[in-house]
Amino acid sequence: MSNEFTSKGYNSPKTKIGQQKMDVLISSAEELFAKNGFYDTSVADICKHAQTAVGTFYIYFKTKTDVYRCLLDKYQRAIKEHLDESIKGCTTRYEKERQGIKAFVKYALQNPTAYNVIWGSLSIDEKLFHDYYVSFAASYARSLSKDAEGVSGTDYTSLAYLLMGISNFLGLRAIFENMTDEQIDEMIDSTIMPALSSGFIKA
Amino acid sequence: MSNEFTSKGYNSPKTKIGQQKMDVLISSAEELFAKNGFYDTSVADICKHAQTAVGTFYIYFKTKTDVYRCLLDKYQRAIKEHLDESIKGCTTRYEKERQGIKAFVKYALQNPTAYNVIWGSLSIDEKLFHDYYVSFAASYARSLSKDAEGVSGTDYTSLAYLLMGISNFLGLRAIFENMTDEQIDEMIDSTIMPALSSGFIKA
Repeated sequence: MSNEFTSKGYNSPKTKIGQQKMDVLISSAEELFAKNGFYDTSVADICKHAQTAVGTFYIYFKTKTDVYRCLLDKYQRAIKEHLDESIKGCTTRYEKERQGIKAFVKYALQNPTAYNVIWGSLSIDEKLFHDYYVSFAASYARSLSKDAEGVSGTDYTSLAYLLMGISNFLGLRAIFENMTDEQIDEMIDSTIMPALSSGFIKA
Repeated sequence: MSNEFTSKGYNSPKTKIGQQKMDVLISSAEELFAKNGFYDTSVADICKHAQTAVGTFYIYFKTKTDVYRCLLDKYQRAIKEHLDESIKGCTTRYEKERQGIKAFVKYALQNPTAYNVIWGSLSIDEKLFHDYYVSFAASYARSLSKDAEGVSGTDYTSLAYLLMGISNFLGLRAIFENMTDEQIDEMIDSTIMPALSSGFIKA
């Protein structure tokens, strides 16, 4: 059976049952990568864990790395959906950042393995890591440019990296200190948002 | 031979030749970790590559993970020295951040494997990763508190994570886009410093 793979290296199933089979393969891969590492997990291991024939694997993926790419896309989608949900009803850029950063930090705290998967891609294939953040930054920059009246400065790409860096590192802190939701809200309301709106390093 | 290991899990040699031997072991480990991964590199491989007896390894390190910790400490020291050097003669916090962020981003661009080593520690032992950033943040927060008159806000730990996030993600961008020193300076002077001193998300 020959397949037309997308540039992403994986095929999206056309049927619901196909999607379910693919999802089981991705979840199995995620579990085994976390437990044994990417290099010590084989396609055969993933299929065995998923109780799926090896031939089925190759309907959806070209290589093991493509499963990883698919996993990264899954995380990016989940994070974006979570952020979109959090800013529903926000009418200003300020309010979007306030709710969005809070939502990101809480997501990070509840899904700490997201860092292992996303940052772990660096040691598997730097292109995976590159593509993940370049696409995330482009989408963030577009969103900032749409709210231009709420943003000082027009270099939206730099500002996107700046904001992504802040969210990611506050997420780390929340994990390190096992912060409560109240502590996260307090940190963002009292320190982060004033810093973003008025600055904090005196010129 | 019995050794008194520090809480870090590695011993600092007392002689210059001992230090040289240890340095060769660390460099060999770094090279092999980058090439074959941490899990597929054994202590025997490291010693063979370093042309050192296995017994010598255990004078300095308890385990392979301890070499990794030593490698992280080496990077942290190198980064801090590079930053300290960059802010020599700066008299205001603003100038320190401006030069420090530029120096960090340029260091990242010149040493992209620093991300592999530092963020890669997450998939080896989360404590390594935790200790690296918690100690970096504590040191940054202390430095901010010493320049309190140049900083609005007193939650120095949150501000330290915020600044670390910005530097780290601008460093990624510089690598992704293979930026020149002039482009880095321009990004920081025209967009990042104004954002840090006056804010950019309108309240």
